[in-house]
Amino acid sequence: MQTSASTSSGSVATNETERLISSEKVVGTPVYNRAGEHLGSVHSLMLDKFSGQVAYAVMSFGGFLGIGESYHPLPWRVLTYDVRQGGYVVDLDRQRLEGAPSFTANETPDWGDRSFGHRIDDYYGVSPYTF
Amino acid sequence: MQTSASTSSGSVATNETERLISSEKVVGTPVYNRAGEHLGSVHSLMLDKFSGQVAYAVMSFGGFLGIGESYHPLPWRVLTYDVRQGGYVVDLDRQRLEGAPSFTANETPDWGDRSFGHRIDDYYGVSPYTF
Repeated sequence: MQTSASTSSGSVATNETERLISSEKVVGTPVYNRAGEHLGSVHSLMLDKFSGQVAYAVMSFGGFLGIGESYHPLPWRVLTYDVRQGGYVVDLDRQRLEGAPSFTANETPDWGDRSFGHRIDDYYGVSPYTF
Repeated sequence: MQTSASTSSGSVATNETERLISSEKVVGTPVYNRAGEHLGSVHSLMLDKFSGQVAYAVMSFGGFLGIGESYHPLPWRVLTYDVRQGGYVVDLDRQRLEGAPSFTANETPDWGDRSFGHRIDDYYGVSPYTF
């Protein structure tokens, strides 16, 4: 699995272009805040299975080697890719992230319950994801 | 990495809902044709990094344990998820797939060249993917 966001590796030519990027490359990409602090990395993406639209990027946050990690779904729109840092930038500090809707590896987020998604959208101040 | 498309495993409740599905679950999902023949599986997704729209699902096809495999990008719209088979169904036979735009593990598809994408869209008879 490709986890590097380096722009100098050979695989980038294969997987990344001006507009298109491979899911292999998105997963594992670090997430920073505007102060340049490393917050976590992209763990997975939640897609609309009919339209193929990414609704949420699930960010892993905290923990050590996967233990104690929590998963924070972020609306796709709040992530901005920064070429210089080789990662996504979000306008969030740790504290705000700690209070965000999240789940642990042992929990089952109820994606089927629309209010879960709406709670995420609300928290980050984006318009609700509509299907 | 989740590679099963089973609808009875516990992880499905976590990763799949009526509308949303985890990228972890899409990658590795088998692809069948309308005759029920197994063609390959989803290797990765090519996303529009700005809009978050999945443009192509890259299907691995042929080979054995990753050796001799070729990668066939399919427009997302030609894939239909079939709950009964636990996989995606495409209206293609092997012969048509063999003649489709593809690349090998050692090749670099030029995603930056729009004509590559247009060639894929043309081949499968869908309107060109626009950015």
